[in-house]
Parts: sequence; C-alpha cells; structure tokens
Amino acid sequence: MNDATARAVERMLAADPEWTETGTAGERIGLDRHTLLHAGPPFADPAEICPPILNAAAAALLFEGMADGVEEARALVRSGAVTLRPAQDFGVVTPLAAVVSRSMWLHVVEDAGGSGACAYSPLNEGGGPALRFGIVSGAVVERLRLLHGAVGPALAGIGPVALTGIAREAMEQGDELHGRVGVASALLTETLVARLGGTGAVCAFLKEAGQFFLNPWMAACKAVLLAGDGVPGAALVTAAGGNGVRFGLRLSGMMGEGWASAPVAAPQGPDIGVSRPRLPAIGDSAVIDALGFGALALDAAPLLRAELGAAAETAIAAADRLLCADHPVHGRRVGLDARAVLLGGPVPPVCLAALHAAGEDGIVGRGLAWHPPSCHAEAVAAVDARSRAGFPDAPDRRA
Amino acid sequence: MNDATARAVERMLAADPEWTETGTAGERIGLDRHTLLHAGPPFADPAEICPPILNAAAAALLFEGMADGVEEARALVRSGAVTLRPAQDFGVVTPLAAVVSRSMWLHVVEDAGGSGACAYSPLNEGGGPALRFGIVSGAVVERLRLLHGAVGPALAGIGPVALTGIAREAMEQGDELHGRVGVASALLTETLVARLGGTGAVCAFLKEAGQFFLNPWMAACKAVLLAGDGVPGAALVTAAGGNGVRFGLRLSGMMGEGWASAPVAAPQGPDIGVSRPRLPAIGDSAVIDALGFGALALDAAPLLRAELGAAAETAIAAADRLLCADHPVHGRRVGLDARAVLLGGPVPPVCLAALHAAGEDGIVGRGLAWHPPSCHAEAVAAVDARSRAGFPDAPDRRA
Repeated sequence: MNDATARAVERMLAADPEWTETGTAGERIGLDRHTLLHAGPPFADPAEICPPILNAAAAALLFEGMADGVEEARALVRSGAVTLRPAQDFGVVTPLAAVVSRSMWLHVVEDAGGSGACAYSPLNEGGGPALRFGIVSGAVVERLRLLHGAVGPALAGIGPVALTGIAREAMEQGDELHGRVGVASALLTETLVARLGGTGAVCAFLKEAGQFFLNPWMAACKAVLLAGDGVPGAALVTAAGGNGVRFGLRLSGMMGEGWASAPVAAPQGPDIGVSRPRLPAIGDSAVIDALGFGALALDAAPLLRAELGAAAETAIAAADRLLCADHPVHGRRVGLDARAVLLGGPVPPVCLAALHAAGEDGIVGRGLAWHPPSCHAEAVAAVDARSRAGFPDAPDRRA
Repeated sequence: MNDATARAVERMLAADPEWTETGTAGERIGLDRHTLLHAGPPFADPAEICPPILNAAAAALLFEGMADGVEEARALVRSGAVTLRPAQDFGVVTPLAAVVSRSMWLHVVEDAGGSGACAYSPLNEGGGPALRFGIVSGAVVERLRLLHGAVGPALAGIGPVALTGIAREAMEQGDELHGRVGVASALLTETLVARLGGTGAVCAFLKEAGQFFLNPWMAACKAVLLAGDGVPGAALVTAAGGNGVRFGLRLSGMMGEGWASAPVAAPQGPDIGVSRPRLPAIGDSAVIDALGFGALALDAAPLLRAELGAAAETAIAAADRLLCADHPVHGRRVGLDARAVLLGGPVPPVCLAALHAAGEDGIVGRGLAWHPPSCHAEAVAAVDARSRAGFPDAPDRRA
C-alpha cells in the first residue's frame, strides 16, 4: 500500500455510519422527473440497457405516473426522454436491477465520525415480486406504492439508527452481511417496530421483510468508502457495481470522476429451481464486498460458505491477500487496494443474486461474481494519470 | 506445486510438438455426419448455443451438403438432429466460433518426445469472411470449399514440420504466439510454399493467410498439455476454452473427464471500428495462454502490449505469479497450476479476438479475457475428489 492509499484507508477506518434520516430522492438529492438512477457504471447508450433494468425503469415510470403502460414507459427510456444515470454518481447505492426515481424514499446514512461522507439507498421491497429482480408487473408497482406511500413516510420520524453495532452482532451469528442479512435484519426490525409502536401495516411489512438491513447497510458501506475518497494517488476502491453488462470501479484517487469498467460474467452458484440464462453481475451491493464484507467475509457465514462450495474457498483465500487494513471496531480486515490486484493479486469476489438475463423470470439463483481484472488496471492507470497532473488531497473535513 | 502436479509438469516439459500429418476429421478422429465440434465446454442444451456458433454450424452443414439453406441448417442443430460436442473431448482445438465437421482437414500434431500425445486443429481460413468469426454467408461456405477441397489435400503430402523452433524464433521477433503470429506465420509459410513448389492457388492462399501458424500452434500447445494429462491429484491445466457463454477448464487430475465451467465475460480491449456488443470469451485458443504464451507472454510482444494498455501489465504480473516451471527449450516459464489460483493467486488472462454477440458483424475487436476463478475452484475440487477415490497415474508412454 502506498502512502496515498494509506491516507485514504486511515480516513475510511475512522468512519462510523449511522442511518440518520429518511426522505425522498426528489428532496434529498434533487432528482428530477426525467432521471432514473441505476446500479453500476453508465450505459454507453439506451440500446445497451439490459432487459431487467429496462423493466425496472418501466415499473418506476408507471409508479411515478409518467406513463400509462409498460411499452410507453420503455419507449421513454429507449428514446432518451428519460435518462438513466449511475446511482453512485449521486451518492446513492441501489440493489440489483432496482432503479431510483424522485418519489422513492431513501435511507440517508451519514458518517458520525465527522468526515461529512453521506450515502443513500432506497428502502428494501421485501420478497416476492420486486423492482430489484428486474421484472415489471402490477404487483411490482403496487409494492412500490406501499413502500413509498406508507413505509417511507412512517420511517421519516424514527430518529437515528447506528448500524455498526448491529453489523458486528449479526456477524457473530453467521451473517456475512450481503448474501445473508437475516440476523441483522431481525435486530434492525426489532428496533424499528419498537419505535413505531409495534402495530399497523408498516410494522407488519417490516416484520415480513427478511432483508430490511441490506439496503441501509449498502448505504453504510458506501458512506464508509466515501470517507476514504478523494485522495490523489490512492488506489482504495470507493465505488463498485455492475449494470448487468459491465462492472465498474472508482478509486479514491479518481477524485470522484469517471468509472473504470469492463464486461463482466454472471454470478456462478446454485440455481433457484431450473437453470435459466443468467444476467452478468448487477447491483451496487458490490460496495459491501468492496469494503470487506459479503464474499470477502464468507469465513463468518458457515452456511452460505457451504452452499457456495469450492468457489467460497477461493474467495476466502482472495480476502486474505486483498484486504489491506484492520478495522478497529469490526475486528476484521477491510479495504481493497486496486494496486494489489494489478500486481499479481487475486480478483475480488462479490456475493450476488443472479437475475434472469431476459428479464422475465426475476431472480434465478445466487453465487459469486468477480471483478474484471481489466477494471483494476484501467482504474489504477486513471489514478496515476491524475496524480501526475498534481491534484491536492480533498479536504479532510474532520480536520 | 504438489508432487502430483510436479510429475504432470515434468511430462509436459519433455514434449516436443511436431505437425506430422494432415487429414480429414472423418478419417483421423472418426467424426460422423451428425456431429460438429465447437470450442470450450459443452452446452447444456441446444437452446444455450450462442449465435456465432449456431451460424458457424449452419455454414458447416451447408458445406457438408447436409442442408440447402441457412434456416434448415440451424433447425438441424436446434432440434438436436445434429449434435454439437466440445472439440477438446476429441483432442481437437478450434479457434473462436469455428466448428469442425467430418470433411474438414485437420493438422495432426504429435509429441515427438514420445508421450503419445496427439492433438488436432482445423486449417486457418485466412482473413475476411470466415467461419471462426461466427457468421454464415455464401462467401464463408465458398472459403471452406477452397480450404478443404484444395489446401487440405495439397498439405497431405508435405511431410513433418517441427513447430518449436519456429515459435522460438518468432518470439524473439515480437510474436507472443496468440494475438500476434505474423512472424511465425511468415516462417511457416516460407517452409510450406517451398515444399509445394512455390506456385499455384494453394501457395497463393498460404502467402495471403497471415495467421496460418495459429492453428497448428493451437494443436501444438494442446498436445504439450496432453503430455501432462492424466496424473491423479495434479492441478496442471490441460484443457481451456470458451464457448461464448461459459469458460471451461480441465486439469490433469480430472483424468480426461468432465469440465469445470462458469459464466465468462467478453474480452476487454480495443474495438475494430465502432463499438458493438461483445460475445463472452470464445475459442479453444485459450490453450495457448494456458501453456504460458499469448496473454502470459505479453512481455515478448511490445506492440501488442502497448495496444492492450494497462490490462497488459496486469496480465504480465499475473504470469509472474502463475506460471510454474522453466521450459528447457523456450527459456520461459510455462504451465498453470490451478491450486495457485485457488490459494489467492491472480486469474489467468487470455488474449482473444472479440466477436459480435448477435453473430451478425463477425470480429469486432480484441482484448484480454480472464478465467473465471470459480472454474479453478470447481476443477481443483474435482481433482481432489478423484484423487481420494484412488486413481493410478495414466501410463507414461515414454517409460
């Protein structure tokens, strides 16, 4: 690790993510009617958008009342009348194929450590028909209405929720905090339901939603990564995600601009039911693994480790070589230094759900995807080019 | 490297590949009318076959007179009336989307070192419209008629050609022997044209075909890998290739059976003309890189190294950590030990052409693809399972 990366890591280690507020994308990040946010790096043009994200965009436009039918909604995206932008360019992280539109409610997660880092994620939809699985139907739109019409507003006044303690406790009980968040979600839901008085439709929804911790945790990981962002010359990974076609990265020393991306394979692992063609890796939840949880923490999740088979052992061996610092609170190694990948290191794994490539069957399995090595090479080259150009460090707002 | 892998590597290092004969797939490997051979691991079912291989299969069936039109030919494949099988299951290696049918002429490459290893590859079609680019047209079929009607028979009597010396000399002049084979092809063509008397249509074809060395070299690399095959417990990679959907491996200790495969990304690198959607990695030429040439020898090819940019440096760093033995003749490191990947090593790169995903535009670029780490994990697990079952070593026929 070079000096610049060490400085970025030091800032990252001081971060303490807290879910402080809940509000709509329109209010919180100024998202307009004609922009939707998606996971991963940008699409080159609307023709490149994968079917699951196109479906999710259509469902979001129906939810927003921007279109009356699915084909009309898809046409708005294909024509460019509605623009898809990478969520992480707005500090937002969104799971799988889910898009974010202006009326959707977001978790606001801030660094209580004082760096000023802040990240956002949409509320988790629960199981069954869901936007994040890349399908469009009346049930998906109905779910969005419940989530953003009732659950979001109810959560607006619940007060701050510290996430690090829940994460620690859940890992001791077998969650790696990406593929498995059951314990963490139960702990979080318990807190939320208590604050909401324990009864009513919103509490019923939260008790049913088995992965409600996942989305605020994605925002938490993103906020922690952002605390280490903006250090010239630093190769710490601070953004990561797939868009169903390409996988993209941003490093601290890219100074918040651009993506390094490359074509990516589908996650490999167990099917749900019969085998169906899988979409290449998708989702901003890759930030969880980029910080050092998920596929890089499979040692903490024996059931998931067994389910993923031999590849889980490769992921664990990769984690041993890749993670670059000891986290003072989690007591685990964290942080990816892209130079380690570049210089003959293993590629980082990501624990992901697999979606149907054609966008018809939703979730079809899960497994491990792997960062394309070319991303790391391109990203480090971008950092070095900027570093030679002589950027100063971004201000450390704790100072 | 464990003892078993060391034994496999020792056998491999003693191999000396020689192009000894040329004959049709029907005669040499007993291929029947209803079977076509393709690159990489098997397809799960005909619905999984990627468009470029389906096109190549259609062109091959038109060439064989098995169908009168493209749709009729495609239907024979889709219905299962004609079966597609992995070429490497027959000792054949085939480039990109090219399929092998019974009337096609093959290079026969044998190990002059006495292991008994033997491998085959179809003749190189030259530039322009070609089966290997995954397109089907009258020009592609016409090319097959020239190649297998005139060039193949003319080469039948030319006598043995040693390949190792040509390879060595070409590497000294900037070929890495996969993405760049220009020097090697010129040297080979010079020999062939001299033996054929220097004039006529076949000599004219050979003088035009700038990559004629590539296919016999693929067979040479495969023969060398096969010399190290069949050692229980050995994790030496002895088969590698993509089918446009998945990338597959076989290790020495898998005893010639099965493939470990996983979804794979497209090669990342420069476009030819405008950017077009790229097919995931395809081709059995991955055996070249698996032996230690191509993407693992980019240090020898400064022009290609520069063209591939930062990712080439990642590939070179990976080669330093991955290759497991010194080759006595080439004076380079060779051989991939899958356990090194499994235990936190980098993933092996492959230098490949990129094909249009939909099979319409043929070759659209080139770049580096990377073995999916999951393949290595699954393959090593298969070796260990067989090893525990107590297989004896395959006989070393040199003994």
